[in-house]
Amino acid sequence: MIFTIDRDVLLNQLLIIQKGLPNKTPLPILYAIKFEVYEDHLLLTSSNTDVAIQVLIDDSSLVIKKTGKVAIPGRYLIEIMRKISSQRVEFALIEDKLIVIKADRSEFKLRLMDIEDYPDIDFLDLDDPIALDSQLIKTIIKETNYSTATNEKRPILTGVNFKYLDNHLYCVATDSYRLSQKNVKLRTHSKTFDIVIPNRSLDELSKILDTYNNDVELYINPNKVLFKMNKILFQTRLLEGTYPDTMRIIPTEFPVIIHFNKEELLQAVERVSLLSPRDRETNYNIIKMSLRPDSIVEISSTNNEIGDALEEVIPASDVTGPVIKIAFSSRYLVEALKSFSSSEVTINFAGEVKPFVIKGNLDQDLLHLILPVRID
Amino acid sequence: MIFTIDRDVLLNQLLIIQKGLPNKTPLPILYAIKFEVYEDHLLLTSSNTDVAIQVLIDDSSLVIKKTGKVAIPGRYLIEIMRKISSQRVEFALIEDKLIVIKADRSEFKLRLMDIEDYPDIDFLDLDDPIALDSQLIKTIIKETNYSTATNEKRPILTGVNFKYLDNHLYCVATDSYRLSQKNVKLRTHSKTFDIVIPNRSLDELSKILDTYNNDVELYINPNKVLFKMNKILFQTRLLEGTYPDTMRIIPTEFPVIIHFNKEELLQAVERVSLLSPRDRETNYNIIKMSLRPDSIVEISSTNNEIGDALEEVIPASDVTGPVIKIAFSSRYLVEALKSFSSSEVTINFAGEVKPFVIKGNLDQDLLHLILPVRID
Repeated sequence: MIFTIDRDVLLNQLLIIQKGLPNKTPLPILYAIKFEVYEDHLLLTSSNTDVAIQVLIDDSSLVIKKTGKVAIPGRYLIEIMRKISSQRVEFALIEDKLIVIKADRSEFKLRLMDIEDYPDIDFLDLDDPIALDSQLIKTIIKETNYSTATNEKRPILTGVNFKYLDNHLYCVATDSYRLSQKNVKLRTHSKTFDIVIPNRSLDELSKILDTYNNDVELYINPNKVLFKMNKILFQTRLLEGTYPDTMRIIPTEFPVIIHFNKEELLQAVERVSLLSPRDRETNYNIIKMSLRPDSIVEISSTNNEIGDALEEVIPASDVTGPVIKIAFSSRYLVEALKSFSSSEVTINFAGEVKPFVIKGNLDQDLLHLILPVRID
Repeated sequence: MIFTIDRDVLLNQLLIIQKGLPNKTPLPILYAIKFEVYEDHLLLTSSNTDVAIQVLIDDSSLVIKKTGKVAIPGRYLIEIMRKISSQRVEFALIEDKLIVIKADRSEFKLRLMDIEDYPDIDFLDLDDPIALDSQLIKTIIKETNYSTATNEKRPILTGVNFKYLDNHLYCVATDSYRLSQKNVKLRTHSKTFDIVIPNRSLDELSKILDTYNNDVELYINPNKVLFKMNKILFQTRLLEGTYPDTMRIIPTEFPVIIHFNKEELLQAVERVSLLSPRDRETNYNIIKMSLRPDSIVEISSTNNEIGDALEEVIPASDVTGPVIKIAFSSRYLVEALKSFSSSEVTINFAGEVKPFVIKGNLDQDLLHLILPVRID
């Protein structure tokens, strides 16, 4: 196995492959990146318990002198490639278990792992993909993933539910204290599906999409989904189980609707949270929001030990409806507001102890819902 | 106590004062910042076991309506000031233990601590200061402080020794594995002194000097030193004990002297360290450096588990002297090289098991010394 390639080209692909390396695994071979060197291209593969990633490299800078397959310790290889400043690097297998990497006056000999130990990765090979725009996927992840559960009490809630029905994609995430829902009309037809993708996988996928701007093809079977991006395959396991029916908890009648400038509201909420006491269950800061008779919204917190905070926010337009007072975790509202692209948002109140709903004037078909907490 | 001030002005001074707040203290009052409001200026004070800081604010934006003294919880106040976006803020004592901070439509009530509990801080009040240029102090800290010991086995080594004699300032730091020494000729006369300043205090002082460009006056007594900067007082305790005589461990004869391009050498050393094994005692990466008969310098590491690294570095000028081979902690050389301003450095070898000395062509009167480790 001998090849040379531009260092920048290889490093960029290694940084994608890196997202498939495990942090900790009982199967040490997975710390390696599988290099398959063919006559005119390379295939690099990494995998852990959640995802498997494969990239194909057929860059014009690639010169292959001898084909072969090896398993190279991933993190060491990536660190070396980061630190190398020369333009070209050469990889050559010199013994059964030793690879030499040369770059200018640098020479690294890395002990290989046994390529025979590397598990076979089945990347899905199906018909009928669903084509999605890469930026749409990125947007959906940004708008929903933060609402997934981080603890494993109910494993199904640690992922985002993607349901496809009649040309519409319905995406929902909830940790049972708040919920994000995004609906998208698709231009393509497909068979219906109803899957839950782990939040960590979506985080990694989102980072890969930062550098990819074409359509992504989705291939789905009952256990996994493959995202195919030109020369990158990103496959993740799916969460098992039935996702809860969340439609019934979203209120439909809102006696009070208040419009806000998003940035003003966000800053006021962040300031009030500085002093607010923490919720016993979630450890999050609890703040109060109330609509005063003079139509000004008051955001406040009371803390016997440290002190009190009070912000007045003037709604962006006239408010109708009764005076209302509600308390909730400030972090939920901060995260929801940050996920909107709109500069103006509405908060829709169903009642003092009912979930309230946040929408953005420019973010069509996106809603966030937050459960209030009871206060004295 | 009532005053108003521009938020930016106050925040900038609070960020200096912050460096004197303790992380953890058995004396909770020290979590507070002492505010003394006089007719035409404010004095803010913070202190912990190492340092005490005082800033005077007499900015033209300051409007004092009522004098007074209070102790305001430091971290909460600083967080609030950071998050406030309005131009002006008002502070008003409304009850014995409650201060109101108003900014636009924001209002914070902070519970005060008991000002009577705040300890008296004696800032030195002496004659005969030594005047030093602030950038010189910053440079000395950068060039020496990293060589101080981080563990407390020999407490005296956790500081930098500043010795003044016959118009010269001699600055030394060592953790007993490496040493940094900087000599400076001063323009002013002063009484002789020989003090050791804790490394943490120097770190904080260095950050304050980032925003200060005038002369600094030093006032020294046997227990502490005061750095006086226009409207800022920075006082630190001194380490007790006698600093070891380090002159005798610096070799004076060097059979081999090699010139390097600093950046080239630094990059080669950093790459080799990626694979190098770790020293049992210090847990640092051990690398080898040898001068070959062909006058090329080889930097290498051997690691039975992971692999080997080898770099060839061509000296910046002709090398005279015998072939030499030496092993040492790469981190020591990396840190030493980074502390030089020069783009060219020399490594001066006294022998294979003797300390070697690094100098920069533009960094006069600065030397770094590193002890080699024995290898097989």
